[in-house]
Amino acid sequence: MRAALYLSAGTVVVEDVPDPVLSEPTDAVVRVVRAAVCGSDLWSYRGVVKRAERSRLGHEFIGVVEEVGAEVRTVRPGDLVVAPFTWSDNTCPHCRDGLQSSCERGGTFGAPGADGGQGQAVRVPWADGTLVTVPGGPAGVDASLYPALLAASDVMGTGLHGAVMAGVTEGSAVAVIGDGAVGLCAVLAAGTILGAERVFLMSRHADRTAVGKAFGATDVIAERGEEGIAAVREQTGGLGVRHVVEAVGTPESWAMAVGMARDGGSIGAVGVPHTAPTLPLFQPLIHNLRLNLGIAPVRRYLPDLVARITAGTLDPGPVFDTVLPLEDVARGYAAMASRESIKIMLTPGG
Amino acid sequence: MRAALYLSAGTVVVEDVPDPVLSEPTDAVVRVVRAAVCGSDLWSYRGVVKRAERSRLGHEFIGVVEEVGAEVRTVRPGDLVVAPFTWSDNTCPHCRDGLQSSCERGGTFGAPGADGGQGQAVRVPWADGTLVTVPGGPAGVDASLYPALLAASDVMGTGLHGAVMAGVTEGSAVAVIGDGAVGLCAVLAAGTILGAERVFLMSRHADRTAVGKAFGATDVIAERGEEGIAAVREQTGGLGVRHVVEAVGTPESWAMAVGMARDGGSIGAVGVPHTAPTLPLFQPLIHNLRLNLGIAPVRRYLPDLVARITAGTLDPGPVFDTVLPLEDVARGYAAMASRESIKIMLTPGG
Repeated sequence: MRAALYLSAGTVVVEDVPDPVLSEPTDAVVRVVRAAVCGSDLWSYRGVVKRAERSRLGHEFIGVVEEVGAEVRTVRPGDLVVAPFTWSDNTCPHCRDGLQSSCERGGTFGAPGADGGQGQAVRVPWADGTLVTVPGGPAGVDASLYPALLAASDVMGTGLHGAVMAGVTEGSAVAVIGDGAVGLCAVLAAGTILGAERVFLMSRHADRTAVGKAFGATDVIAERGEEGIAAVREQTGGLGVRHVVEAVGTPESWAMAVGMARDGGSIGAVGVPHTAPTLPLFQPLIHNLRLNLGIAPVRRYLPDLVARITAGTLDPGPVFDTVLPLEDVARGYAAMASRESIKIMLTPGG
Repeated sequence: MRAALYLSAGTVVVEDVPDPVLSEPTDAVVRVVRAAVCGSDLWSYRGVVKRAERSRLGHEFIGVVEEVGAEVRTVRPGDLVVAPFTWSDNTCPHCRDGLQSSCERGGTFGAPGADGGQGQAVRVPWADGTLVTVPGGPAGVDASLYPALLAASDVMGTGLHGAVMAGVTEGSAVAVIGDGAVGLCAVLAAGTILGAERVFLMSRHADRTAVGKAFGATDVIAERGEEGIAAVREQTGGLGVRHVVEAVGTPESWAMAVGMARDGGSIGAVGVPHTAPTLPLFQPLIHNLRLNLGIAPVRRYLPDLVARITAGTLDPGPVFDTVLPLEDVARGYAAMASRESIKIMLTPGG
């Protein structure tokens, strides 16, 4: 089969690799229908973090189950499935807490030794605990829903996790820092799922702003740093917002989050730092802030997200502004790295 | 009147100062019955932070109201009152959120320009929003309750805030890092008020350990750093504890808190850093930790604490292991700085 491989900073290729096979009775093999390129894939592409030469790429995909191991019970060959970006047994103590991203037997697609989503097929460990089926299957689900279902595999679940951790409730006001796909999905989650009344999106890119507004942002603020903080405070009676989603992960974005949070407020932080940022604690302490950080346990949210998407009440699909065949994955990385594209959808299934 | 003054690092004296007077119609003047020396008073004493020469000291006191301004409604001359370490109007948006430590008109006793608790009398701004009366008054309350009431002015409220922010619930397990008065009060709050079933206290000082056990610590762990983390994990099935109170505020104590928290767990942090520590965010992120920091809004908890203390169901008084007359305050600072004493109670009222 064909799969994307990382060669070096700036160089991603598609080559022939061995077809995946079942290696454990709890595995499934999934033929990939749609896959995505993630902002976090860009760190190695930009040379910011090291990555093994010829390693598989990608951790976001939807597909059709081709084969399952003897112990797999909940998914069958032919099922249309969404895979969260981490696999999980869904039975360990952390999984039972709804923290499948901390699963004791878990791992991340595209990590060393694992298959990546940016290929024609993937071996999925712990298939029962990982995969969520889409009712209707490939024949019953219109392909127009594929972008939304693909978004649910990571960015929609991650944006929702950020909004949940920020404590967003019905009628509340929330600020979202980060206008990448995760930030945009946090906007959608805050308004459409959690009922926020006012959603500030910090954004200065016209294409992202447009998606943010379509997703329910009520206020778009182009200023950054102290000016961005002042703009949000001005709109909230000087007090700041009770709920902030931090979807970038840099010292600068954290400083904005801390600066615009109301005393006693909550920051839901899902921006994964590619460096190892440190946070000065004095301001959070004197302002009684709640800093809730986390790699999203997408599997927890996935059944609900799939139900909303197939019911037509949630559509994060517009985060994908570019669709490319798998063979053109290199063009996709380049377009995202240059910010020409918000997010790339690949079509390994043709 | 007599009051403690800071002269320089290591030098605290008691001198004559002008009697306090009402300067606003919302003020009260309180004659101090008992006052305390706080761990945070030691930073300037040790020369770690700068403090103005001849500034007033102390922010923990109970007393009897001597005089009130024309607009004061809820406290009357002759009332026995507890003052939280910060004053607050109790009507601003932050106060209405129960965050009196963020009061828009608030301040801290002993801060520049304010009276300190370590003296014979104090001008209390916003008396209605700040002071909590003790039913029965000075004639009806046994002096044996004074230590507990004095503890409620800061360390008991702060320890409780830490345990509340750590999310301690009935039947839960919690670890407390810090065996100073605040950490010990967090132990008491976790067990006696919030119903924790298992309370780990990180402590290696026999006198503090003894108080911690009397306050309900079920496990005392003397190890620090990685060994301390391993000891707590060993006692919690390898998973760590869901609730951690961080009552020190150094990089080392934070590292312990992060290291022993279960994935998805909460750290309630009330350790006020005298330096400006920064926290590495990667571990909290991958383990989905909730970091809840805050200067305690003691005023929020005070009515309940006073009720429990006068009912005899809560006694944080044993945090005071040394009682001294006001004139001997310098001995008190020296004893706390050398860790001979956990916490000093002064008797300005004789």
